[in-house]
Amino acid sequence: MSLAVTPRSEDYSRWYTDVVLKAELADYSPVKGCMVIRPNGYAIWENIQRILDRMIKDTGHKNAYFPLFIPESFLHKEAEHVEGFAPECAVVTHAGGKKLEEPLVVRPTSETIMHAMFAKWIMSYRDLPLLLNQWANVVRWEMRTRLFLRTTEFLWQEGHTCHASEEEAQEETLRMLEVYRAFAQETLAIPVIHGLKTDSEKFAGAVRTYAIEGMMQDRKALQAGTSHNLGQNFAKAFEIQYQDRDGKMQHVWQTSWGVSTRLVGAVVMVHGDDKGLVLPPRIAPTQVVVVPIYSSEADHARVSEFAVGVEAALRGRVLYEIDWRDQYKPGWKYADWEQKGVPLRIEIGPRDVEKGHVMLARRDGGAKQTMPVAALAEGVPALLEEIQASLLKRALDFREANTFEVDDHERFEEIFAGDGGFVRARWCGGAECEASVKERLKTTIRVIPFGAPDDPGPCAACGTKGTGPRVIWAKAY
Amino acid sequence: MSLAVTPRSEDYSRWYTDVVLKAELADYSPVKGCMVIRPNGYAIWENIQRILDRMIKDTGHKNAYFPLFIPESFLHKEAEHVEGFAPECAVVTHAGGKKLEEPLVVRPTSETIMHAMFAKWIMSYRDLPLLLNQWANVVRWEMRTRLFLRTTEFLWQEGHTCHASEEEAQEETLRMLEVYRAFAQETLAIPVIHGLKTDSEKFAGAVRTYAIEGMMQDRKALQAGTSHNLGQNFAKAFEIQYQDRDGKMQHVWQTSWGVSTRLVGAVVMVHGDDKGLVLPPRIAPTQVVVVPIYSSEADHARVSEFAVGVEAALRGRVLYEIDWRDQYKPGWKYADWEQKGVPLRIEIGPRDVEKGHVMLARRDGGAKQTMPVAALAEGVPALLEEIQASLLKRALDFREANTFEVDDHERFEEIFAGDGGFVRARWCGGAECEASVKERLKTTIRVIPFGAPDDPGPCAACGTKGTGPRVIWAKAY
Repeated sequence: MSLAVTPRSEDYSRWYTDVVLKAELADYSPVKGCMVIRPNGYAIWENIQRILDRMIKDTGHKNAYFPLFIPESFLHKEAEHVEGFAPECAVVTHAGGKKLEEPLVVRPTSETIMHAMFAKWIMSYRDLPLLLNQWANVVRWEMRTRLFLRTTEFLWQEGHTCHASEEEAQEETLRMLEVYRAFAQETLAIPVIHGLKTDSEKFAGAVRTYAIEGMMQDRKALQAGTSHNLGQNFAKAFEIQYQDRDGKMQHVWQTSWGVSTRLVGAVVMVHGDDKGLVLPPRIAPTQVVVVPIYSSEADHARVSEFAVGVEAALRGRVLYEIDWRDQYKPGWKYADWEQKGVPLRIEIGPRDVEKGHVMLARRDGGAKQTMPVAALAEGVPALLEEIQASLLKRALDFREANTFEVDDHERFEEIFAGDGGFVRARWCGGAECEASVKERLKTTIRVIPFGAPDDPGPCAACGTKGTGPRVIWAKAY
Repeated sequence: MSLAVTPRSEDYSRWYTDVVLKAELADYSPVKGCMVIRPNGYAIWENIQRILDRMIKDTGHKNAYFPLFIPESFLHKEAEHVEGFAPECAVVTHAGGKKLEEPLVVRPTSETIMHAMFAKWIMSYRDLPLLLNQWANVVRWEMRTRLFLRTTEFLWQEGHTCHASEEEAQEETLRMLEVYRAFAQETLAIPVIHGLKTDSEKFAGAVRTYAIEGMMQDRKALQAGTSHNLGQNFAKAFEIQYQDRDGKMQHVWQTSWGVSTRLVGAVVMVHGDDKGLVLPPRIAPTQVVVVPIYSSEADHARVSEFAVGVEAALRGRVLYEIDWRDQYKPGWKYADWEQKGVPLRIEIGPRDVEKGHVMLARRDGGAKQTMPVAALAEGVPALLEEIQASLLKRALDFREANTFEVDDHERFEEIFAGDGGFVRARWCGGAECEASVKERLKTTIRVIPFGAPDDPGPCAACGTKGTGPRVIWAKAY
């Protein structure tokens, strides 16, 4: 631990970077735009992987691995796809001491290399659905990067599926969006709004893109996961065909969907406070830290002995560490573990030993409480679940307090010229109106939310009459 | 399942490729030298990762992630390192639509990019030891590639550590070699010889390289894991220094160690037979396949009902699948699952139902046996352990039968001109002798084995007197 982090109210952006660096989640690397994910950050990503991987497998998908390199010509097979990704690509032109005949692109996403294989593997309706997922690194050459949120190289999972019908592909697209929504909410304690992206915000090559969007503490939106219905765009470009039950050749219907290490940044931004990181217990690599307090040899012995029982209550039930470092005082240790986001601290001092209890300090705030040692085995896991729920509620309350139903144009402009937030407003449906707001107010339509009824009336941005549901406008990362 | 695999006796190399392709472990990709790891192959790699990751963490290491790209100049900081790796590198010269100021190398291994960060993080003896591991993809531009065994891109783990003393670094180097030895033997059922590499075979930049070597069924060696003592070579090149307890600046002592997806190829080569893949139960994604046998509706109903009890006995105890595919006959299914390497098959026919037992067929051979349903819950896991042990024993017996203690030159030449094998022989210690054997017989010293006593006498290769222990000579992948 070093100095305190910049307060959020002073500079939210600097606060974020301070937290990431001081909690040792990541560090800048000598390669422009690439970060180093340090053990504290990588352990969070491992937890994300473990839990989400289970959900992806439980919905019938299998993991596979495809090449890092993509022949440049593959990218060009789908017109919108190349337009979207070519400007961001890193290109290998030389290898093994020679110039390559065809340059290789470092994958920015794997549709094209995977689809070339799918065309080879898929013969008949019996081979469908094909449900694959890949955990991998991808590279997109970004001009302005930020640790976790936008880096040149990032880690992610990308699901890629093929189906025999349009309907099945659409079901899959929504199924995986729902997996992401549930994961964000239940595991990361991040409430998200899910819905459809407008055409101008969709994935390059998709028919429809859906997304989950969370609100950060600066009231900006963060896109935390996307799920694309690719229709037959790539199937036609790569000639992925199957023989149907009637012996006729048909193009498959496809989807793709992904979440990335950006989620670690979202966790920092949604839950962190001016003391540093705050981790939801379900993804915390260390859920509980035990800090023994002693100032004499005799106290040390008594606290040590007492700690044996505390450990016995925690072992196998929660992920814990005991901080026996002699060179630091308890107060310093508290601040250190707070900065690192550990959800629950257990303090054991000589007076606690006498009374047969421990002192508990929740990272999400509130008064300290005591708990008898005999109650720890059941009490600590329950308390962690309480913290998990309270973090979600706090984030949800914050989002609700900063979401505004807006009808008139002046208020619309005022919000985005001011503190921002999520604005539920009517939209004319025009791409030009959208582009003008983006240009003028750096604000975009995050999603057309699911389940919102049609609500005809004047567009809050431009006044033209719209007929669809209200959409969510916000500034975004 | 398609046609049978080429018999090993006919063409071992084609047999290997057949098994990999037909068991759908991997496929060729459109990118030269890169393979696609298909779900059946990736699931084996996931099991390897899960078990080995636990062993790596249990020895105190933490996972992290460093950039894919390395500035070309970094590679040049350690003289031997650049000489070894530069010719194999893939180089990114353009990104984001522009030519880069400095080309970026796609990591062939991560020493240099990691060490640049270590220099920043390590200040004092309190920061040591630094014990990191990374699971990642790396790229080495190979001319002749083979699925899993040698591919341009491969997946691996690479451990990188820093220590305060030479002794500690040496201990770490040997500790991780022992982890690899135990893992290969206990999990992959591959017996390995472990020992020191000769200078001409060591890692580019290392002081000493240790390796584990297994014998394939064509009697060639496969290097299955390496552990390097890097001394202070990189520490000096990257100025990784710490302040010791006396306040003096010291260079750290380093190690690195890794195993790769090559291990999947080793499993195929060591255990497979002319029917296809044979998987050791501990890494088999499916350990048991249940094949119901029926030819009438009535039989189907009785077998179905019986299978419920069989499933209840297996669930939560072993990884199993039930093959209810109607379009295939039992005999076809047997061959299909045999080709895919599933260690144990359970057959349930109407007559088995009558008798309240199942028929068991072990993938490692031997007569079929019956087992009462009531015995399955305990019997099947025990049988899987028996199969695991029998595979290891078979591999060990094969290696012993093909390992020769050789004293004279003629016999030495004869073996490597003939069927090959592991040859334990005296060596003069000369690099020129080694190079000459490599040139003449395509044979190398695999390791100077641990624990072998000094055995002075004439070198089997060149006749010059040697003084050290006998070494293991073999042809190798």
